[in-house]
Amino acid sequence: MPTIYVINPNSTEAVTETIDQAIEPLRSSDGPGIECLTLAEGPPGIQTQRDVDGVVEPLLRRAAALENHAAAFVIACFSDPGLHSLREQSARPVFGIAECGVLTALSMGHRFGVIAILPVSIRRHLRYYGAMGVTGRLAAELAINVNVVDLANQDLTRSRMIDCGRALRDAHGADVIVMGCAGMTKYRPVLEDELGIPVVEPTQAAVTMAVGRVRLGGTACSFGAVE
Amino acid sequence: MPTIYVINPNSTEAVTETIDQAIEPLRSSDGPGIECLTLAEGPPGIQTQRDVDGVVEPLLRRAAALENHAAAFVIACFSDPGLHSLREQSARPVFGIAECGVLTALSMGHRFGVIAILPVSIRRHLRYYGAMGVTGRLAAELAINVNVVDLANQDLTRSRMIDCGRALRDAHGADVIVMGCAGMTKYRPVLEDELGIPVVEPTQAAVTMAVGRVRLGGTACSFGAVE
Amino acid sequence: MPTIYVINPNSTEAVTETIDQAIEPLRSSDGPGIECLTLAEGPPGIQTQRDVDGVVEPLLRRAAALENHAAAFVIACFSDPGLHSLREQSARPVFGIAECGVLTALSMGHRFGVIAILPVSIRRHLRYYGAMGVTGRLAAELAINVNVVDLANQDLTRSRMIDCGRALRDAHGADVIVMGCAGMTKYRPVLEDELGIPVVEPTQAAVTMAVGRVRLGGTACSFGAVE
Amino acid sequence: MPTIYVINPNSTEAVTETIDQAIEPLRSSDGPGIECLTLAEGPPGIQTQRDVDGVVEPLLRRAAALENHAAAFVIACFSDPGLHSLREQSARPVFGIAECGVLTALSMGHRFGVIAILPVSIRRHLRYYGAMGVTGRLAAELAINVNVVDLANQDLTRSRMIDCGRALRDAHGADVIVMGCAGMTKYRPVLEDELGIPVVEPTQAAVTMAVGRVRLGGTACSFGAVE
Amino acid sequence: MPTIYVINPNSTEAVTETIDQAIEPLRSSDGPGIECLTLAEGPPGIQTQRDVDGVVEPLLRRAAALENHAAAFVIACFSDPGLHSLREQSARPVFGIAECGVLTALSMGHRFGVIAILPVSIRRHLRYYGAMGVTGRLAAELAINVNVVDLANQDLTRSRMIDCGRALRDAHGADVIVMGCAGMTKYRPVLEDELGIPVVEPTQAAVTMAVGRVRLGGTACSFGAVE
Amino acid sequence: MPTIYVINPNSTEAVTETIDQAIEPLRSSDGPGIECLTLAEGPPGIQTQRDVDGVVEPLLRRAAALENHAAAFVIACFSDPGLHSLREQSARPVFGIAECGVLTALSMGHRFGVIAILPVSIRRHLRYYGAMGVTGRLAAELAINVNVVDLANQDLTRSRMIDCGRALRDAHGADVIVMGCAGMTKYRPVLEDELGIPVVEPTQAAVTMAVGRVRLGGTACSFGAVE
Repeated sequence: MPTIYVINPNSTEAVTETIDQAIEPLRSSDGPGIECLTLAEGPPGIQTQRDVDGVVEPLLRRAAALENHAAAFVIACFSDPGLHSLREQSARPVFGIAECGVLTALSMGHRFGVIAILPVSIRRHLRYYGAMGVTGRLAAELAINVNVVDLANQDLTRSRMIDCGRALRDAHGADVIVMGCAGMTKYRPVLEDELGIPVVEPTQAAVTMAVGRVRLGGTACSFGAVE
Repeated sequence: MPTIYVINPNSTEAVTETIDQAIEPLRSSDGPGIECLTLAEGPPGIQTQRDVDGVVEPLLRRAAALENHAAAFVIACFSDPGLHSLREQSARPVFGIAECGVLTALSMGHRFGVIAILPVSIRRHLRYYGAMGVTGRLAAELAINVNVVDLANQDLTRSRMIDCGRALRDAHGADVIVMGCAGMTKYRPVLEDELGIPVVEPTQAAVTMAVGRVRLGGTACSFGAVE
Repeated sequence: MPTIYVINPNSTEAVTETIDQAIEPLRSSDGPGIECLTLAEGPPGIQTQRDVDGVVEPLLRRAAALENHAAAFVIACFSDPGLHSLREQSARPVFGIAECGVLTALSMGHRFGVIAILPVSIRRHLRYYGAMGVTGRLAAELAINVNVVDLANQDLTRSRMIDCGRALRDAHGADVIVMGCAGMTKYRPVLEDELGIPVVEPTQAAVTMAVGRVRLGGTACSFGAVE
Repeated sequence: MPTIYVINPNSTEAVTETIDQAIEPLRSSDGPGIECLTLAEGPPGIQTQRDVDGVVEPLLRRAAALENHAAAFVIACFSDPGLHSLREQSARPVFGIAECGVLTALSMGHRFGVIAILPVSIRRHLRYYGAMGVTGRLAAELAINVNVVDLANQDLTRSRMIDCGRALRDAHGADVIVMGCAGMTKYRPVLEDELGIPVVEPTQAAVTMAVGRVRLGGTACSFGAVE
Repeated sequence: MPTIYVINPNSTEAVTETIDQAIEPLRSSDGPGIECLTLAEGPPGIQTQRDVDGVVEPLLRRAAALENHAAAFVIACFSDPGLHSLREQSARPVFGIAECGVLTALSMGHRFGVIAILPVSIRRHLRYYGAMGVTGRLAAELAINVNVVDLANQDLTRSRMIDCGRALRDAHGADVIVMGCAGMTKYRPVLEDELGIPVVEPTQAAVTMAVGRVRLGGTACSFGAVE
Repeated sequence: MPTIYVINPNSTEAVTETIDQAIEPLRSSDGPGIECLTLAEGPPGIQTQRDVDGVVEPLLRRAAALENHAAAFVIACFSDPGLHSLREQSARPVFGIAECGVLTALSMGHRFGVIAILPVSIRRHLRYYGAMGVTGRLAAELAINVNVVDLANQDLTRSRMIDCGRALRDAHGADVIVMGCAGMTKYRPVLEDELGIPVVEPTQAAVTMAVGRVRLGGTACSFGAVE
């Protein structure tokens, strides 16, 4: 039975498990299967542009091996590594969580703010919003600036996320927040409670769109077609 | 059990039936119910800005009566009449098919083209894409220019749609098409076959996003909150 | 003799009287008559999107009754309710005070700031500037956040307006201010004095353009034409 | 009595006379005087950027001599030569016909087309629309490509204008036309008749706004203030 | 002595030789050395997004080995593969020929047109112009649609390039052309002769900027810094 | 031997000398000569729009006298006075330091900040970035607000520049700085040291591009061509 493969391109299993829990409500008994995978060849976390570029080849190989059983692919990293390469390679619809997270946010508020993990990612994301043509809807992106080790400190992480969310809402006018990373689902409820505005967990946004696309069928996408 | 109400704001039952068939694949046994309704007070078709403005009040009344049973609302007209008014009134998430159709298209091609029914709608839609901040991704919008009576002539309608789709693809560079109306689902497969690029049926796009939102829960949206 | 009808779509006569005084300098003995009317069916103030949508029908009826004597219509509410519907209905030129206020400001400064009454209106206005395609010239919009009852407290209202104007000028770089409401004309001089930059009262801006259009004649507009 | 001075910065008296006729309907017995002047030092026509830059100094001198009697200035050339220099020099409001023509068009249609005289002017105008931040509303600008001598051939000029107008409307989607030059008022009615969409004569647009500004008083503008 | 390394990320030596000839006029006896290299690990030509992503790792390795002798790096492929990854890795300034080619064109004409080799590259390039924030200056991009084998047929290639250039100039309003690939320098003079507008060879543009940056010294760039 | 003429359009010889030192590293024994000239007819400093407009005629005369010996022209004032007029007049490539400074910055950071001398110049520059179509990449422009006399006070000037640079980087998100004036080269190193991000001296940026263009030959530009 065709399955939506959600590929976490970093090698941290705990992140994959979090994603798996995040998208659990989107599974249904009569719908497509949804399987979350870890890319063993990826780095523990994707922080730099080099990390982004570096996971494309193993991700494509992994996806190629899954192609025959795949209904769709979701790339579960907020830099959408390999999104357009996989769209070229695969005959299935392919979703990036940054693209889907931002598009979903545009239906929930007028100006979206993004919470990143590290400052170094912000410029990369800004280029991406420019490529998407949605910069005019961006309030701002701020980073919690917590390194991989300290991310496990939930008090610190939660507290920084709330601080960023407040700054995005109050100083930058954001009325919807996008979590600029995968694996942070557990903070979504507390953020919504503290901020009083919607918070988009991008893996959930992407899997939502993937489930619909698979159920509806049709031409996958135009991005990758080699004319 | 909470239900997603898809409200067709025109009074033509046949359109509602078409919508109902269009979103059938999105129903699941363990998911939210999806019910398609006709707004009896609406005009037979929504063509002018006055038609758009005129259905807001009856649509709000209808939605108010459904609020307690509603999991979400979908407004099934490509001008998204009353979208922000209903977001103010309701505590549930509210989706417009134009907004969702365009956002979904942005994940399937780089430049979206829109097929409208009548030329008079194009300027209204252009204002809307401007309000959405996505004009930079628009290839063009063209109208099949078939009046309500002749829409029943399927050969004419299909042929005009294919002509518009080809012009959008070849002369304007569109690589994904959005059907700029509800009730045209039956032409989606033939359009994809003829054009070779994806075609978004906007009711399907909106219900997809609604199902996900309902399954995931959380804060509805920021648009309507009265501070 | 043909008359420019300035319709205040809220039911507060005092607002209409203020508008009437605001546009008094634009009357001339040999020019078109200018008559200010109150829409009795409107709410006391237009605050929400629902208020905006709700006044369209009575406004259209009122305008229809005036059509034969009308030289032009001005809709005197900063959300321009029914602007495009009335353009469809009427053979006369139709002006919205938000549209005219912003366009006029663009000839007086490089970045316009807007002073709104309530925060809830800001997102609605932002969508409108987007539809107008002028978001790139917007410095910011801030709300004085005074409710209808307290608006009568002139000291409070004036003080909040000056505070907003200063923040728009100093923190957001605005060099021209648009009053984001009708009926606030009396504060225009004190704002210009305190801020040292021009302040646009939007009813004055719209009636200015209406008087010119009526004197010059010609095709009314393209927005409403039903092809 | 304070007068609005409309300065034609080219030296061709016939153009000034045409402007004078164009704005005649905007004069009123109890309003500001409106006087149209020819800048003797200007070239017969303003075609190149050098022509534009070259008339600034004589135009500023002429305006300085008029300052004490001036209520406002209108610069009657579609390249708005010296607009911001004169705003610096004068304590009166200053209007450029390109700026006012385009802003006025934005209230009459969604996408404006411009008819230029010579192709060489188009790039200059495109830079100007960019500086105004309204490029997103531009349909296109086309030139009739008639030299100064042949402009007197009214059949040729009219015919080329109609051709350009049709191309702007049909191929580029313009629903309002701006005449990209002064002194062409006589063709406005025939253009509106042939095209069925509004045509803005920019001198009329600018004088309309000037009359209103003078009648209403207040701070002139922010553009020129030397902090 | 520090050297500017121009890395051709495809494995076709003939392309590298062409680049070497293209930038010969930029060498000077007292300036930095300029050395053109072929990335042996690259594909014969870079056509798809996968080709782009796939050359990043070998390109980074090659650059790392050259770092100590490098004054700057130029990535000589119009998709700028690995541009931001190399900016992270290297302490030297890094230039992409697409970025530099487009920026240079913006100083030579108002609307730039791009001639691509294959249609599949156009969407990738459009995303890139969006990321650069310069879409508003783009006239259009057209492809000669000649495959790698037939590129050696100089008559065909030249003829197709001239056709594309004419269409960009006449139908899309381009007044400067960017060659959307490396290794086509030989066609630059004939294109300029036939079109009468400037043609930017992007390798030349990038090496020009690299020579200046090396001569002037200073902080390399902000893109890659890991905070 | 053909020479690149760098014309300082203000009459202050000390500024010209600073420019001459700034571009010294760009001279090479086998490259084009680079000569820096002072426009005696210019004002001591170019501050207002009138200053900008006023130097065009003498600048064009000076350039005309140099045409036969010129390889290219660089206009060394951050308002690029007469840029397009000189492009019309001359058959040589013409560079403006604002245009080249900003374009160069776009290859060094994602959001550029500009340090102006006086607040009055900021609006003029904003119009220019709009005309260039790069407003979306602008972080902000701030002025050191030091008058011509006090500019000689190096401690004050340096300290204000560092303050502006820090505000641009920290409050506005700039990751590359453009010096919004000529003659400030001496502060570039200290700014880079203090800020840790690249600083573009615009005269250096323009001469870099001029040297490359002269060495490479080809069609000068499209801006000035009179069709």
